Parts: sequence; C-alpha cells; structure tokens
Amino acid sequence: MAKKFYSERNLKFLLYEAFDVNALTQYNYYEAHNRKSFDLVLKSAGKIARDLLWPIFEQMDREPPELRDGTIKVHADVRKILREFGGGGWISTIVPYDLDGEQLPLMIANACQFIFMAANYSAAAYPGLSDGAARLIESFGSKALYDRYVPKLREGIWQGTMALTEPEAGSSLSDITTTASPTGDGHYQIRGQKIFISAGDSDAVDNVVHLLLGKIDGAPAGVKGISLFVVPKKRVENDGTLTFNDVNTSGVYHKLGYRGCPIAQLSFGDNDACRGYLVGEPHHGLRYMFQMMNEARIGVGLGATAMATAAYYASLAYAKERKQGRKTGQKDPALPQVAIIEHADVKRMLFFQRAIVEGALALAMQCSKYVDMEKALNGHADTEPYGLLLDLLTPVLKTYPSEMGILSISQGLQCFGGSGFCDDYPLEQYYRDCRIHPIHEGTTAIHGMDLLGRKVVMNNGRAIRLYFDEVEKTITAARGYSNLIPYADPLKDAMSRLSGLTDHLHKVRLEKGDETYLADATLYLEYFGIICIAWQWLVQGVALQSALNDKCSAKDERFYNGKMTTLQFYYAYELPKINGLEIRLRQNDGLTVEASAALFDD
Amino acid sequence: MAKKFYSERNLKFLLYEAFDVNALTQYNYYEAHNRKSFDLVLKSAGKIARDLLWPIFEQMDREPPELRDGTIKVHADVRKILREFGGGGWISTIVPYDLDGEQLPLMIANACQFIFMAANYSAAAYPGLSDGAARLIESFGSKALYDRYVPKLREGIWQGTMALTEPEAGSSLSDITTTASPTGDGHYQIRGQKIFISAGDSDAVDNVVHLLLGKIDGAPAGVKGISLFVVPKKRVENDGTLTFNDVNTSGVYHKLGYRGCPIAQLSFGDNDACRGYLVGEPHHGLRYMFQMMNEARIGVGLGATAMATAAYYASLAYAKERKQGRKTGQKDPALPQVAIIEHADVKRMLFFQRAIVEGALALAMQCSKYVDMEKALNGHADTEPYGLLLDLLTPVLKTYPSEMGILSISQGLQCFGGSGFCDDYPLEQYYRDCRIHPIHEGTTAIHGMDLLGRKVVMNNGRAIRLYFDEVEKTITAARGYSNLIPYADPLKDAMSRLSGLTDHLHKVRLEKGDETYLADATLYLEYFGIICIAWQWLVQGVALQSALNDKCSAKDERFYNGKMTTLQFYYAYELPKINGLEIRLRQNDGLTVEASAALFDD
Repeated sequence: MAKKFYSERNLKFLLYEAFDVNALTQYNYYEAHNRKSFDLVLKSAGKIARDLLWPIFEQMDREPPELRDGTIKVHADVRKILREFGGGGWISTIVPYDLDGEQLPLMIANACQFIFMAANYSAAAYPGLSDGAARLIESFGSKALYDRYVPKLREGIWQGTMALTEPEAGSSLSDITTTASPTGDGHYQIRGQKIFISAGDSDAVDNVVHLLLGKIDGAPAGVKGISLFVVPKKRVENDGTLTFNDVNTSGVYHKLGYRGCPIAQLSFGDNDACRGYLVGEPHHGLRYMFQMMNEARIGVGLGATAMATAAYYASLAYAKERKQGRKTGQKDPALPQVAIIEHADVKRMLFFQRAIVEGALALAMQCSKYVDMEKALNGHADTEPYGLLLDLLTPVLKTYPSEMGILSISQGLQCFGGSGFCDDYPLEQYYRDCRIHPIHEGTTAIHGMDLLGRKVVMNNGRAIRLYFDEVEKTITAARGYSNLIPYADPLKDAMSRLSGLTDHLHKVRLEKGDETYLADATLYLEYFGIICIAWQWLVQGVALQSALNDKCSAKDERFYNGKMTTLQFYYAYELPKINGLEIRLRQNDGLTVEASAALFDD
Repeated sequence: MAKKFYSERNLKFLLYEAFDVNALTQYNYYEAHNRKSFDLVLKSAGKIARDLLWPIFEQMDREPPELRDGTIKVHADVRKILREFGGGGWISTIVPYDLDGEQLPLMIANACQFIFMAANYSAAAYPGLSDGAARLIESFGSKALYDRYVPKLREGIWQGTMALTEPEAGSSLSDITTTASPTGDGHYQIRGQKIFISAGDSDAVDNVVHLLLGKIDGAPAGVKGISLFVVPKKRVENDGTLTFNDVNTSGVYHKLGYRGCPIAQLSFGDNDACRGYLVGEPHHGLRYMFQMMNEARIGVGLGATAMATAAYYASLAYAKERKQGRKTGQKDPALPQVAIIEHADVKRMLFFQRAIVEGALALAMQCSKYVDMEKALNGHADTEPYGLLLDLLTPVLKTYPSEMGILSISQGLQCFGGSGFCDDYPLEQYYRDCRIHPIHEGTTAIHGMDLLGRKVVMNNGRAIRLYFDEVEKTITAARGYSNLIPYADPLKDAMSRLSGLTDHLHKVRLEKGDETYLADATLYLEYFGIICIAWQWLVQGVALQSALNDKCSAKDERFYNGKMTTLQFYYAYELPKINGLEIRLRQNDGLTVEASAALFDD
C-alpha cells in the first residue's frame, strides 16, 4: 500500500498561509493556542492516523462487522481506537475548556478529522459520531442527561449515534412513526424501527447512546411534531448500573463499501421496555437534530475529500513508479519505457484529482473558519454573517466533494489500469467506500433543493449577497498579482453569470411555480459548486503568489508552483463546465416536471 | 431482484423500425432469413438469458472463481451454459453456413449478445471469448489448425481466450517479451508470462485455447515483430488425445466486479514444454489480433450498454414502487406519500439513464449494420465506406457506453438511496461490475488517441468525411418532420462545430506537434461521443415520427412518446456539455504536456 495518504505540507499551507488559523489566537476564546500547539496537535493526529487507523484500512473492509447473538461484532481494534481517541481528547476537540474540552478552532479540529478519515474513514466514523451526539446533548439536554451520558461518550467508552431514518421515512422525516409515550416517571416509552444507523450497535463499547427522533403521543403531524430523545441501549440506573433498555439489533447491512463501520437496523421497545429521555422541549427535535446533521454534512464533505485525497496519493505513487510505453513520437521500441506520469493524459488525471481534493479541502477550511470566527467574535460583533455563509455553503461542502470525489477516485483507479480493478491496490476500496457520500446525510437532490429552495432565498437573499461580497474580496486581492488576473477575470465573469442565473430562476419561480423552479436544483448545485471551488482556488492563489513573492526555499517554490499549475488546470478544465449547465438551467421547460411516469412504460 | 433487465420492445424498435434489419434479407448473403426467423432467434436468446444466466447473476458474484490445485474453479453452471450455447449455435451466430454457422446479421447477433450481457455479463463473457478466438483462427489460421481447434470452441467444449497483456506490457504491446522459438517439428516453443487473461483458465471446459501474441526469436523489435499463436492448455495429439502443454495458472485476480469470470495470470513454458502453433505469417500477429480486438471493443461497448440497461430497469422498478415524500408544494403530512418516480429529480435520473443506454444501443446497432452491409454487398459494390465508418466509430462505441455507463449506473444506484449501497439490491453489483469497461480492451485514453491520432486522419480524413455525410442524411430526413426541427438544427450546429474544432486541432498539430495535438484526446473523444449519440437519438427520432404518423396502438404511442421525451432530454441535458469541452479543447496551452512530474511533489 502507498505510504502517503495526505499532504501535511498542503494542510499547513491551508491552515497557516491561506486561512491564517493563527490569527484566531488574538481573540480571547482561542488565546491559549499558538502555532506551536497547533503543530503539535496536527503531529499527534498524524501519528494516530499512521499507527492506529491506516494499518487496518484494508482489514476492516475485508472483515466487516457481523451480527452474532444479537450484537454486532466489529473489528477488534475499534475498542482500542475509541479509548485512545477518548483518552487523547479527540472526542472533545472543539468542546470548551469548562466542559473539559480542548477548545480548539474547528479549522484545526477538522484538519485532524481530515487526517483520520484519509487514513481510514470507517474507523474515524465511530469517534466522530460520539462527538456529534455528545455535543447535541451538551447543547440542548438537561444537566442530568449531560452528566449521565456525555462523559462516557467523550471518553470513548460508549458509542453515540444519530437515529433518524425509518423504513418508510428515508429522506422524508415528516413521516417518521417512532412513538414516545409519556410515563409518570419522567421518561418516555419508545416504540419503533430505525434503519441505516451508523455504528448503531457495536461490541467495541459497553453502551450505545442513540440520539433518536420520535413523536410524542398526540404530537402535531409532520416535522412540527418531532421530538429528540436520548435512548441508550442500556439505561443507567441511579446506582450507576446498566440495564438492558429493549433496544434490539435486528440486522446489519451488507454494503458496497464503508464496510468497517456497521450500519444497523434497530428495533426499539419490542417488549415495551424501552425508555427514552427527552432532550430540550417537546416537538423541537428536528431543529436540535439539525446541529448534529449540519456537522455531519460537513463531516461527509470532509470525509469524501479525505478519501479522494488518499486515493490521489496512491495513484500518484503508482504513476511515478509504473513504467509503460513511451512519450508521443518516441516510437523506437529500443528506448526504455517511461514512468506513466510522463504521459499527458496521466498528468491530466492526476491534476484532475488534485484540483478536486485541494479545492474541496480549501472550502472545508473556509467554512470551518466561519464557525471559528462566529465563536471568537461572539458577543463582540455581529456574527450573523458567518452563520449565514456557513448555512449557504453547507450543501456545497457536503455535495461537491461527494460527487466529484467519486469521479476523482475513478480517475485515480484509471491511472492503475487493470491493477486498479484488483484488490492488490487500495483504489477499488476507495471506489466502493466513496459511493456512500452522495447518499448519507441528505442525498444530492435534497441538498440541491436546500440550496436553491431555502438557502439562496433565506433572509431575503442576505446569505448569497454576503457570499458575493466574500468572493469579490478574493477577486480584488487577486488583482494585486498580475499572475492571477487570468483567473480573477473568469471568476468575476462566472459570479456575474451566477447572479444573472439566480435572478432568472427567481422569475421562473414567480411565473411557473416552485416545482419548475426546483426541477434542476441538482444542476444548480453543481453549477454553484464548480464556481465555489474556483473561488477557493483563487483564495489559494492569493496565498501562493504572496508566498512566491517572498523568499522561499527551492522545495517550497516547487510546491507553490505545483499548486499554481493545479489552479491553472481547474480554470482550464473544470470551470468551463458551467457553460453546458447554464444552457440547461435557463431552459425551464418543465421537462421532468411534466413527463408522466407512464412514459417510462413500454 | 427486478424481473426486467432489458426492453424487448426497444430492441425490436431499433432492429425493425430504426435500422430495418429486415432489409438485409434482400441480399443473397442474408436471403435465408426473415422477420419471423429473427423474432424466433430473439425469443430464444431471451429465454436462455432468463432461464440460464439471470438466475445466477448474483451468485456468480458472491462465489467468485478460485484457484485450487493449479486450476481455476468457476461457477458450476458455466459448463452447462457453454454446452447450451455451443449446442444452440450461439458461438457461431455470424459464422457462414459453409462453416456450420448461422450466418445471422451482426445486428441480430449483437441484439442477442446484448440480451445475454444484460442478464449476466460475466456468464456471457465465456462463450463470447470462444467465439472471437474461433473466428480469429477461421480468418487467419491453417485448415489443420481450424479443424483441430475451432469445432470444439464452437461446441462450447473448450474455452477460447485472447492472451496479449504481460506484466511489463499492458497498454504497450510493443514491449511484450513472450518468446517463440522455432523447432524442427512445425511448432514453436513458447515461454512467457501473461496477465489479465479473461477466462484464462476454467474447470468448466476440457481445454483452454489461447490466442497468444509472442515474438519469434530474432523478430524485429516492437509491434512489427509480433506473431500470433494458438497455444492450448492441453495440446491435441495426432490420435486426438490431450497432453498437458505446460500452460500454468499462476494466479487469479480478486476484482472489484465482473467477478463471475476469472481473470488469470498465466505462465507459459515453465518446463520448456509449451508448444505454440503459428497463425498465418510470422510478424503479422498484431494485425490479425486486431480482428478479435476490434470485435472485443464493440463487445465491451455493448456489454457496458447492457449492464447499464439492466441497472436502469432495476431502478425504474424501484422508483415506481418506493413511496417517499410528497410533490413539491404538498407539505401536508396527512397526504399519502408518493412513489419517488413522481419527483422531478428522480425522473431526471431515470431519463438520464435511458438517454444513455438507448442512445448507446442505437450506436451499437448502427455499427453492426455497417458490418452487415459490408458482407451483404461484398463483391457487388464498394464496401470500403462501411469499413471506414466502423473503424472511425469503434473507439466511440467502446468508450461512450463504458464511461457514461458508469455515470448511468451511479444514477440508478442513487434512485435507491441508502438501499442502493446495500447488496439487497443489484445496483451495487452493477456499479462494481461496470468499472472494468473503461479499462479493458484499451483504456479510454488509448481510444482517445486512436480516434484523434489515427481514425480522424486515416485515408486523408475520408472516414470522418463519410461520417459527416451519414449524419447529414439523418438531419435531412429529420427536417421532414416539424417535431424534429428543434433537434436537427442543434445537431447541424454541433457537427459544424466538430468540423471546425477538428480543423483547428489539425493546425495545432502542424504548429505545436503531436504531443500537444493529442494532449486532450480523451476530451475530444468525449466531445465526439456526445455528438455521436445526439445523432443516434435523431436517427431514432426519424423512426419515431414516422411511426407516430402512421396509425398505432395506444401502447405503442406511449412507447414512442416516451422515447421522444428521452430524445428531448438528451438534447436539453447532454448535448450542451460540448460547450465546456470545446472551450478547453481550443486552448491547446500544452498544460499537461509541459508540467513536469516534479510539480506533484511537496
């Protein structure tokens, strides 16, 4: 297996040069940190990834979890991993000091997450889910709930989950049927089925704590009647002992990829003995859950980026090593064969991958910085813009790496030729693993509708206006470097086209209604995403030019030039794709709205 | 599993309405056939596919071939399948009557192949390979070789293969090192290693006959020194007995998909006892092999189309059945959920799949018709145009379905949501299986260079001029129907842009040389392919409008309208993609040529 699964150099370029994470330490909230401590955290994350996660990347796939005697048996190392993560503070990286967390900027926390997920996405999912569940209880639960469940989750002794999906309610949460009947004892009796629950059961932990959506008897129909509950597999009695809470594992899915982490089918209250504990107020569950969901969506985008990054480095190593054929024009068979990286089309495939993964990682850092600024300025300035920008860009950060990561990994596999199709190399696993991302935490279609139907229009379009200001700032900075004018201009043009297209679609909405307006929302998201990543490449370009203007080592110069060529590649090969999309997005003929299902019959 | 894996109605539409296979029966060569006999053949193929191949589609994947005691053990049904195919004449469908074949038009033969491959691609590969090997011996081998090997291949008692690839010579055939040393006994002694040999060993047959490329001692270097040999696993002694021929199976690959068919690693002459029998003249082997390779390339395109077709029907069935959510604007949770096919984005994904698979199948029929016309008119007219058109379009027919089939199946999987990622449904298998197609029988990059570097310029550009004439004929016919003007015009425009772009690239070649000319050949192939399938949709459109103008049943009318809407979809969503590609294809900045490999270091 390839030895390199991410670039520390690139990660540090993003953190310190492009997004200046260090600048955060001027604010009270982050003042205890400094470049040295950040470096130390990144180094530790790299070590854990290399020592604990990477070595079992293949094995966790080859020996997937199995349901035996009612419990899902996972890879033996998961227990150790969770304990190490818990002990090392990795399940509480962004938690405030006063709750025993590390109070790290999300940029640093996500850089570490990225490293873990590049090493072994399935393994990284377990602590990631516990982290999200713990913070959900922290944000909205009572102190009693917090005390009872959160410490164990953060120590890596218990597993957290998010239990939303049901057999008849996948993307349609308004249709969930899990019920919660009030009892006189402060808890609710839970009955229902949940499916596709990541890490929904596991013998690596002593308990599993589900953050579950259900409906209290008599609740309003639809999403307005959804409440959030803590439902442990084993409930904690007042004396601290654990009692089975009638949470039954009815199945584990056999999946295309992402096999190291079990996705469970759960049955709650088969024997009417399942207790749930309400989080916050009744009927506000969906709003609470969105905290975890939004974080999970960013996690998916980051995970897709991480997988595609690891795949990119594997294909790069192979392309440098594998000799095959000769350069165009060198037909003499007596000449030695060249490494395939010498072929233009192989370089195209490598640049394609790099353009996607480094562009997507930049966007992840950009969004993380919005969260960090929101916290740093909390109470000192208007932080609403950061929240709005994050809301607007979440569907992009979730979807662009998910969809493009598949294509990126596919090109990585292609670099290997026939070997890419065989399991002697890791590409076939990345290819399988990554297909989950456009599905979980909201399908691509859902995010298209979220962007065009909700985010673009929310607060009277304030978010998208703020976004235009952000991009404009980058364009202005880029214009200060003559080398960047060839990119600043097309980005300016693309943004003005995005603006025109968005206005056009608003008119379509008024004239033809929501269904036609949203019919090609998936394409709008793709269009929006391509331009957004072009922006992120220009953000990087400004940092690159600034660094190249300073004195730098030959090695650094080569690194910066490699990134500059990738920027050039993105604008040459990727950005032009908006042209085809725009033609379709302006047609609004309602083709897919009006076509009847019967047209598919024969 | 879904019950429908192809549309008989659509296949017959293509054969009888769009491409009028019946018209072939006016020529001597095909005069013994008629519509009734064609129908019977198609019906038999459907029955075999349903009864023999389809039931073990999943099982062959779950229990892949294994190497045990030096022999690859394949699924137990493969023996029966090969015998049935042999007995039924399915391994000699296009073989002339005087060689005991069925002398069927390739259109019909490929329609049957399509049905088999849609049912179970891995199973269909075994007889398909034997067919190609047998016809290669038939075309270029001696009578003695023919008599000794071909009948058994065609009876399905032995397995045929094509043995080209070597560990250090994948895409670069000029570098093969397998040697053939002349002996005084009329045979050659073979020594070498071959890898990635499909059906390269199997316990379903009594013998495996390799059509192998090797170099006779002292042969010229490179491709001009390659000869073709028949190398049986067991050689046939004069008394008819079989003797082990020192062909050793050193491994079987564990693959992402296409698992039902073993891909072997073979070692020839470990004990200096491997005999090979020369086919035709020394050093002409590559030219001979191209017969089988070109057929195999068409087979890959057809196979990719078939898989994507089966995936499409599986996702269509699911979309009709699965209820989830409500139509846009219907927020009332008291309303019943609707089948997901009612959602515009799901219809978009279904139309996308259908546009690809029916467009690609049309192109396969178009190319098959060229072969049939070449045979029908042989000796009566100039048949060179048919050969040139086939040569030109082979890289497109190989690549478009392979690359777009992956995206098509991915959208099919997406229709299933989380279930598409699980092996309870067949989509995850199609998704794995189809990834081989852009790799085997020449990678996409190889075909890009074949199209732009060879096919477009061969015979002073005669092939592409013939192609323009062909498309022009379709545009003219389409202009006779007012409903088709909205498609005839953009196709005309696209063709004129293709022409301008091709001329432009010729100038680039003169000014900047071959490497820059070919740097984006993969994109040129994509561009060419998108327009080519637009042409095939218009070919279908002409047949559809003609049928709609006649009296037809309500059922037929719905079928024709469904296809018309798919045509509309293709022109709305797919054809515009050439705009982005063209921008890049006209830049010719040599980005991927000039970038040094060191730019990927950090």
